[in-house]
Amino acid sequence: MKFDFTTRVFDKEKITLAGTEEYIVRGGRHLFNRLPDAFQGIRKIGVIGWGSQGPAQAQNLRDSLKEAGSPIVVQVGLRSGSASWKSAEAAGFTESGGTLGEMMSVIAESDLVLLLISDAAQAELYQDVFKAMKKGATLGLSHGFLLGHLKSQGESFPATMNVIGVCPKGMGPSVRRLYEQGRTTDGAGINSSFAVEQDIDGKATDYAIGWAVALGAPFSFMTSLEMEYRSDIYGERGILLGAVHGIVEALYRRYVEQGMSTEQAFNETVESVTGPISELVSHKGIRAVYDSLSGEDRQTFEIAYSAAYNPAREILQEIYDEVASGNELRSVILAGERMKTYPFETIDNTPMWKVGAQVRAQRSPGGTPLNPFTAGVYLATMIAQIDVLSAAGHVYSEIVNESVIEAVDSLNPYMHARGVSYMVDNCSTTARLGSRKWAPRFDYLLNQLAFPRVDAGAKADPALIAAFTDHRVHSAVETLLQYRPTVDIAVPM
Amino acid sequence: MKFDFTTRVFDKEKITLAGTEEYIVRGGRHLFNRLPDAFQGIRKIGVIGWGSQGPAQAQNLRDSLKEAGSPIVVQVGLRSGSASWKSAEAAGFTESGGTLGEMMSVIAESDLVLLLISDAAQAELYQDVFKAMKKGATLGLSHGFLLGHLKSQGESFPATMNVIGVCPKGMGPSVRRLYEQGRTTDGAGINSSFAVEQDIDGKATDYAIGWAVALGAPFSFMTSLEMEYRSDIYGERGILLGAVHGIVEALYRRYVEQGMSTEQAFNETVESVTGPISELVSHKGIRAVYDSLSGEDRQTFEIAYSAAYNPAREILQEIYDEVASGNELRSVILAGERMKTYPFETIDNTPMWKVGAQVRAQRSPGGTPLNPFTAGVYLATMIAQIDVLSAAGHVYSEIVNESVIEAVDSLNPYMHARGVSYMVDNCSTTARLGSRKWAPRFDYLLNQLAFPRVDAGAKADPALIAAFTDHRVHSAVETLLQYRPTVDIAVPM
Repeated sequence: MKFDFTTRVFDKEKITLAGTEEYIVRGGRHLFNRLPDAFQGIRKIGVIGWGSQGPAQAQNLRDSLKEAGSPIVVQVGLRSGSASWKSAEAAGFTESGGTLGEMMSVIAESDLVLLLISDAAQAELYQDVFKAMKKGATLGLSHGFLLGHLKSQGESFPATMNVIGVCPKGMGPSVRRLYEQGRTTDGAGINSSFAVEQDIDGKATDYAIGWAVALGAPFSFMTSLEMEYRSDIYGERGILLGAVHGIVEALYRRYVEQGMSTEQAFNETVESVTGPISELVSHKGIRAVYDSLSGEDRQTFEIAYSAAYNPAREILQEIYDEVASGNELRSVILAGERMKTYPFETIDNTPMWKVGAQVRAQRSPGGTPLNPFTAGVYLATMIAQIDVLSAAGHVYSEIVNESVIEAVDSLNPYMHARGVSYMVDNCSTTARLGSRKWAPRFDYLLNQLAFPRVDAGAKADPALIAAFTDHRVHSAVETLLQYRPTVDIAVPM
Repeated sequence: MKFDFTTRVFDKEKITLAGTEEYIVRGGRHLFNRLPDAFQGIRKIGVIGWGSQGPAQAQNLRDSLKEAGSPIVVQVGLRSGSASWKSAEAAGFTESGGTLGEMMSVIAESDLVLLLISDAAQAELYQDVFKAMKKGATLGLSHGFLLGHLKSQGESFPATMNVIGVCPKGMGPSVRRLYEQGRTTDGAGINSSFAVEQDIDGKATDYAIGWAVALGAPFSFMTSLEMEYRSDIYGERGILLGAVHGIVEALYRRYVEQGMSTEQAFNETVESVTGPISELVSHKGIRAVYDSLSGEDRQTFEIAYSAAYNPAREILQEIYDEVASGNELRSVILAGERMKTYPFETIDNTPMWKVGAQVRAQRSPGGTPLNPFTAGVYLATMIAQIDVLSAAGHVYSEIVNESVIEAVDSLNPYMHARGVSYMVDNCSTTARLGSRKWAPRFDYLLNQLAFPRVDAGAKADPALIAAFTDHRVHSAVETLLQYRPTVDIAVPM
């Protein structure tokens, strides 16, 4: 699939990723002064919802527009009586100031409605939202979910509105955190995809890019809402949340069974992934991890990689199929009803994560090992995820952001700082459901298929290792690394 | 939901289960002489497929009709070149004898077509099957899958045929094994549900009951194909396969972590469930397990039961929702394509199941403990499964057969004799897929929700325990126990 667009306000650039051409827009604070032009015709932006993306986007937009000296009002819309009301006020949004209000009133008054409520809430309320919106207003989504949901019902967006998407490739807290770091570190921010699903007045593309730039995205690439929701829902069930959780649980158990202390096992699994492995990938790319290993360590990596790749690819293909078929979205809707009886409970009350809290508290600089077996399993899963997306026709910007950059720059740092629950449970409800659903599957497949092979003395598979070392994703990652400074997200402890 | 029927050939009985009335038919070898009358108009029965149910049903039907002196021919139909051809021949079906042939020819020649190919194959071939069938012939299914699949496509069965279902509440090997035991132990057999989906000539009901009786079902109750496939697909993902697998994995790991030897842990988990717990439930009902415990053991049971019930119920409700919505069937179809690249691999190469093989080899009579914690978790899950089915309106015969009898009389004995792989992988592809999908979820939920509560000192919940001891399922189980002798299936080792 290939996407192209015309922008009146920003600068379109052509880049080559893994041998394929894409058009992108670079962001940066120096572009904030173009926001008034990009948002022509918009007087009020309603940010609806206060979950993962809501707080980050409302604050970033407000701060960016303020810096641009724009009179556009950013107003947060919440259900009356919402428990989030207070926390929106704490972030500076107030009813008296006209920057906080009841959801449907805010929707009715806004020229650009950013619908950032949960997927389940979108499914419940979309008809009311469509009805409430002003004629000619623009609907903004940070996720293609609603498109998928409409399709599964044989419906479509009303023809009377622009429909755009800006989808940050990181969870809300990262979108805010890196934006804040961006005040002093130029270019810090979360990459974003954007989509123009309906353009009734020729303004939709610049609205979308303006929105992305205002959020602080250093790099924005085009996709469609369909490809976005597939890769997004798939990615979070895979290496971003579900897979990484299942992998570290399985590895931790294995290392303890092999005789490691629980502290060491935590260090050689979770800490190894969220520390040195993520850092290397973030700064120098996926292959740098392999290149940093030699002798027996490299062999160990190769054996682990070879044993893990196929089981990981099998389950990742299953996830992609479930997402593309609509099953996964239907499951999310069904879960909404059950969650009234069985709300989320924490996933880190197990002994392993209690050990983790101790390990994090006693961390010493440079004290975290890069375990080659852990690296082999983790990167085999990352590459398998990439291969499934590539086979399904996603553009490389999307592939790399959903499989590599979002992992090492947005999510893993949160697991590093605060554990698995913090990472998983600061994502959307859809992501949290997906992570809980798929993590155990990765765990079991490693245990049932990969580890027994290793224990039976299986050697590295030269074809799989060659496919890894020569993978064209490495050049794509390298190119994308050039589009942002290597800022390490500073998660407040 | 309530079902009633009229039979010209057999004896309908009214029974009361858990305060609700149902109509059923008792089976038995003394009824084989009624088969010619029940099968009026049928000259050939085609048994299509040789997976789990095919071998059992083809042989049982052939043997029963022979005993009745009926000239009806049972002919097995397979794809040409099928790997099962030889094994059908070994069971006495031959091309030269007119009892084995190419699938579509057999379908075209049969008056009653028992379509026992895999769900994926049914989805692929159903249109050809409908086309090949004689006008006025009867389609027999052992599973409501095809109805669900047709519904999800907005299609229905051709109006020109009878459509009936006979669904044994046990896997194929058990259907055959207990039939063989029935030659000497009167009444041994697997219960069955039956359904009359379309009756174009008034003969469909007696065809269905005759089929069930010929399979050796000691007890047959009526349902619809819709309720059948829901309860069937749900049940095998729950306590029958998926849940029991996930439960014993989680418990085994817990006991080893607590300091048990691996052998003892296997004894206190798998062996305890498939041995004394299953035996007690099979002979005396669910509550008998609780009644057999006293003092500290009973307390332990209550604590485990209380911690496990809600997590189990949550995931079981999820399974039911996924099945009823059609998601689970769509997943099975999608899996068919992936399995061409990633065929099933064994699930018991892990250390635990290797220990299990040793434990089984060294078993001593009466040497298996009834672990009260294991019993609490296992029975909490069984009751949760029952409660979900009851809330969804299933008849009690179906509830008890899918949640209790099939577990303790058909499946657990196979796990007892040969391990988890043998149990899971002798079921249908749909069941095998479901077990692989859901077992890890039960495991994780126990680990994340139930065990931490116990470790934090949670006490028994008197309301949950009272709901258990006073549960109306106990009287239903007791009644159903009277409808068959307490035959223990003798699995050849």
